[in-house]
Amino acid sequence: MPTITRIEVRHLKVPLDEVLVDAKHGAHTHFELIAVIIDTDDGLSGTGYTYTGGKGGHAISAMLTHDLKPFLLGTDAEHVERLHDDMQWHVHYVARGGIASFAISAVDIALWDLRGKRSNAPLWEMAGGARKSCRAYRGGIDLNFPLPRLLDEVRSYLERGFNGVKIKVGQPALADDVARVKAVRELIGPDCTFMVDANYSMTVNEAIAASRAFEPYDIYWFEEPIIPDDYAGYARIADAVDMPLVMGENLHTEYEFGYALERSRLSFLQADASNCGGITGWLRAAGMARKAGLEISSHGMQELHVSLVCAQSNAGWIEVHSFPIDRYTTRPFELDKSLAVAPDIAGTGVVFDWDKLAQQAERISFQ
Amino acid sequence: MPTITRIEVRHLKVPLDEVLVDAKHGAHTHFELIAVIIDTDDGLSGTGYTYTGGKGGHAISAMLTHDLKPFLLGTDAEHVERLHDDMQWHVHYVARGGIASFAISAVDIALWDLRGKRSNAPLWEMAGGARKSCRAYRGGIDLNFPLPRLLDEVRSYLERGFNGVKIKVGQPALADDVARVKAVRELIGPDCTFMVDANYSMTVNEAIAASRAFEPYDIYWFEEPIIPDDYAGYARIADAVDMPLVMGENLHTEYEFGYALERSRLSFLQADASNCGGITGWLRAAGMARKAGLEISSHGMQELHVSLVCAQSNAGWIEVHSFPIDRYTTRPFELDKSLAVAPDIAGTGVVFDWDKLAQQAERISFQ
Ligand SMILES: [Mg+2]
Ligand SMILES: [Mg+2]
Repeated sequence: MPTITRIEVRHLKVPLDEVLVDAKHGAHTHFELIAVIIDTDDGLSGTGYTYTGGKGGHAISAMLTHDLKPFLLGTDAEHVERLHDDMQWHVHYVARGGIASFAISAVDIALWDLRGKRSNAPLWEMAGGARKSCRAYRGGIDLNFPLPRLLDEVRSYLERGFNGVKIKVGQPALADDVARVKAVRELIGPDCTFMVDANYSMTVNEAIAASRAFEPYDIYWFEEPIIPDDYAGYARIADAVDMPLVMGENLHTEYEFGYALERSRLSFLQADASNCGGITGWLRAAGMARKAGLEISSHGMQELHVSLVCAQSNAGWIEVHSFPIDRYTTRPFELDKSLAVAPDIAGTGVVFDWDKLAQQAERISFQ
Repeated sequence: MPTITRIEVRHLKVPLDEVLVDAKHGAHTHFELIAVIIDTDDGLSGTGYTYTGGKGGHAISAMLTHDLKPFLLGTDAEHVERLHDDMQWHVHYVARGGIASFAISAVDIALWDLRGKRSNAPLWEMAGGARKSCRAYRGGIDLNFPLPRLLDEVRSYLERGFNGVKIKVGQPALADDVARVKAVRELIGPDCTFMVDANYSMTVNEAIAASRAFEPYDIYWFEEPIIPDDYAGYARIADAVDMPLVMGENLHTEYEFGYALERSRLSFLQADASNCGGITGWLRAAGMARKAGLEISSHGMQELHVSLVCAQSNAGWIEVHSFPIDRYTTRPFELDKSLAVAPDIAGTGVVFDWDKLAQQAERISFQ
C-alpha cells in the first residue's frame, strides 16, 4: 500500500489582469490558490488544489494543515473514496459544506493525481472515459464592463474559437441587462450558444421578469437567477417561464445536489471539483445528474474540469472561467475546432509552473 | 455611532476531565474555545465566542483574523443584524454554513454583548424578555460509559437538582441501547423528563426500530436519529412511529432551519448560537420555530443559551452540556428549583475568567 509520508500546503494570492465584477461577490482583484502536495512512500507525488475569489484561503489552509494533514499522514493513498468520506466525518461538526468542502477537495484531487500517476492513466480515462473532447464556452466576469468593452471581450472569445459565451446579468435596471443581452446576441449571431448568469442577485419574481425579457435572444441557460439555498424558488421560476435553469457552483455536498435535482426543476447541473469534494464529489454529482437525465457541466478550473466533463456520457459544457489558473500550469487549456481537449498526461494533467507562480503570485504561506 | 476600533481573536484548547464519546464524533479529550474581543471607540468592550469538539478551531480563528476582522474594523457596532448579514455575504462563496457559521457566530455574540453593555440591558431582556427562568436538562456524552458508571452519572444529575436528563444511544446492538434506556428510566422514576440522542448514527429503518423499542420508557424526544441532511428521512420516521423527533445543533443557516421545519415533521427545534450565526441567527431560528408552533431549545453553551431560551414565549429546554465552558466564567450556570436562571448582567452575562483559562487551558493563538 502506498502510504502518505508528507503533505505540504501552499497558499498563494494570484493577481488578475484587471478588476472583475459580478452581481453578488463584488470586485475581484486577485484569486487565491491553495495547493496540496502529497508524497507517498513509493516515491510518487500528487498535487491537488482549490481556489477562492479572495476570501477564505487562510481558513482552508488552516484546516488542511491542522485538521486534515495529521489525519492523513500514514494512511493508504490508494483508498481515495474512503479517505474522502473519512475526511468528511473527521471534521463533520464544523463541516457539511463551507471551508471544509474546499479543503477536502484539494486533498481529494491530489489523491486522484497520485492514483493516475501510479496506474499511468490520465484523468479523462479514470473518470469515465466517454470521450477526449467536449463542448466549451467562455464565461466572463464582466458586470462592470461598459457595453463597448463587453462586446470587445465577446469578440475576442469568438476569435479564440469559442462557439459558446456567457455574460453576467444583474444590472440595477433590467432594461440594461436586456440591452446587453440583445447586443451580444447580435454580435455572436444565431448559431453561437449564449448563457447568462445572475449570481443569485434576483428574487423569484425578478428572475421570471428577466426570463421573459431575455426570451427573444435564445438563451441556452439562465444560471443562478436566485440564491442557491431556495431550491423550491427555482422550480417556481421554471413553472412560470420557458427558460432553462442551471446551478451547482455553490452546492458543496451530495445532499445539496440531491435537493437541487429533486426540487429545483433544473435543465442542467453544474459542479465545481474545487468546492464539492474534489474529483470524488464531482463524479458523484455527475452520476446524480445522469440518473436525473441531465447533462453535467463545470464551473471554473478549466484545466482540470476538461478531463472530468469529457469523460461523462452525459457531458455538458465546460466553462472556461476568468480566473486563469491554467496560465500557471505546464499545459494550459486547449481548444480544437471549438472543442475542449483533455490532456493525455498520467494523473490529473494539471502540473503547476511553480517558478512562474513564484514570479507573479504573492506567497502567503507554504507549510 | 460606536465604531469598532480593535478586534482580538483568542484560540484555546480546554482539557476535559475525562474522555467523552458519542456515536459519530468519536472520543473528545478537550474542546476548543475561540473567543473574539471587540472594542469600540466609546470605551466599551464586548466578548463573543464559539467552540468545537476539537477540530476546526484553527480555521475559525483564521477566518476571523484574515477575513472578518479587516471587514469589521471601522464599522458601526450598533448595526448588529446588518453586520451579521453583511458578514454572511462578505465570505459567501466559501460560506453558507461550515466554518464561516462558527466565525460569524463569535463576532455576532460579541456585538450583542456590546449592545447590552451600551444600553445596560441583560441578554434575556434584549432577546425577548418572556421570562427569567426556564426548564433545563443535563445532557451526557456517555456512549462509552459502562452501565453502572452511566447510572452514577445520572444519579449525580438528579442530586444536582435536574428534573430532565439525556443520554447517548447508538450502541452497536439496539438491545444494549434499550437496556441502558430501561435502567435509566427505572433510576429516575416516572416524573423525570428523559431524552435520548443518537448523533445521527442510525438509518431511517434503524431509527424506526429503536423508536419502537424505546416506547415503554416514555421518551420525551429522540434527538438526531439520522443525518441532519436527510430532512425527508426524519418525516419518514415520524410517519412510522409515535416518537417526538428533534434536531438543530447541526443546522447552520436560516435555510437549513427552514428545510427542517418544512420537511422533517419535528416535534421540537434546537439551535446553537455558537454555530447558527450567533444570537441573531439563534433568534431567527426561535422565531421560525414559533411560527411553526414548536418550542425552541438549545444545544451546548448553557451559560449563554439560558438567557436566550428564557426570553422566548415558545421556550423549550436548555441543554446543560458536558463541555463545561461555564466553569471558566465569572457566573457559572445556575439552577434554582430545577429551573435555569438567566443572569441579570448587562450584555450577554458571559464574562470569561482569563486567569483561570491561562492556568488550565492551552493557549493556541492570541492575535
Ligand atoms: Mg456562475
Ligand atoms: Mg445532540
